Parts: sequence; C-alpha cells; structure tokens
Amino acid sequence: MDYSKLDGLIPAVVQDHATGEVLMVGFMNADAVERTVQTGFATFFSRTRGALWTKGETSGNRLQVEQMLVDCDEDTLLLRVKRLGDGNVCHTGERTCFFRDYVRDS
Amino acid sequence: MDYSKLDGLIPAVVQDHATGEVLMVGFMNADAVERTVQTGFATFFSRTRGALWTKGETSGNRLQVEQMLVDCDEDTLLLRVKRLGDGNVCHTGERTCFFRDYVRDS
Repeated sequence: MDYSKLDGLIPAVVQDHATGEVLMVGFMNADAVERTVQTGFATFFSRTRGALWTKGETSGNRLQVEQMLVDCDEDTLLLRVKRLGDGNVCHTGERTCFFRDYVRDS
Repeated sequence: MDYSKLDGLIPAVVQDHATGEVLMVGFMNADAVERTVQTGFATFFSRTRGALWTKGETSGNRLQVEQMLVDCDEDTLLLRVKRLGDGNVCHTGERTCFFRDYVRDS
C-alpha cells in the first residue's frame, strides 16, 4: 500500500456486502489496516483523536469484513462488510452516513 | 462542505448507479465540486498535476452524475453515476479500480 499521499493515511470505503450500499468512508494507517486484517473487523485511524478505533467497539455495531479490495494504484481500500448490531452505521442513527442529497438538500 | 481536513480536498467515492459497484475514489476541491454540479460530469482535482480533470475527457469514458450524496459530517461525497463510453473506469482497462483482493493477492 502507498501511504505517502496523505501523510500516512489512506481512505477506506465501507460498502454493505449484501446490498451494495456505501455506508461510510474512514481513514486507515498501516496499523489500522493490519488490525482490520487480523481481527476481521473494520478499524480506522481517528484523525481527531490520533488513535485507532474499531468501529462499533462501544455500540456493538461492528463491521465484519467479508472482502477487502485494493485499488489499482494501491492508495485506497474498499471493505465489503456485514453490519452487526442494529446495522446503523452512522453516528446520527442512520443506516449509512450518506443520507443527504448534496444538490437537493443544500 | 468541510474542506479543512485534507488541505482543501475531500474524497469522492464513485459508484455505479445501476449495479452498486464502487468504481473509484478521487479527490475534489471546491472548484471540482462546483464544476461537477454545473456540468453533470464527475470532475476531480489531480493532486499530482495540481489541476482539475474531468474523468474521461480524452477517453470518452465520462461519468454522468445521477445522484450526489454528502455524508453526515460533510467531508465526503458519494457520486452515483452512469458510465459513458466503454464503461471501463480504471486506467488499466478494468471496469473498476477495485479489482484486486488485498488479502488473497498480496
């Protein structure tokens, strides 16, 4: 992986494995990628807290990785996941973080 | 939109509107977002060239935006698109940039 373009981070797109719905985008550093592969649960690097966080570690809404794809130039990951818990990925309580139309609702 | 987290840029996930397939991730600045909305074709900011580029402007494989969604904290966009031209989005000739399994193929 090429972590050089964003100061050690890469974007990771999270997609529902069953429905194809795009749920969120997080950032990972090399440690987060390793933790994700080792545990099978999506783990990100929090830019605000400067630490790793496993999505759903408190809420129970963890993201179980079914497939992990890398893009052509190795600077982005796509995680196809199964939603655990109540399945609401967004901290607002929505299923996905992408619930608002940019043009119509802005 | 919040462009402050990545020095004026936001990630933009491109998804096939019909199939749900995630095709690529690019970066946009405010000008690229405006150009995308105005023209209806996905336009990104090239970090290497330091300039806007409309995907497919030379190949004809443009990405016609069917829906543009913003995430909860307004720092990421999701573009649901129709593929024009031969429909191969990746510069390698693949349909999608995410054609390689990170775990199995690395």
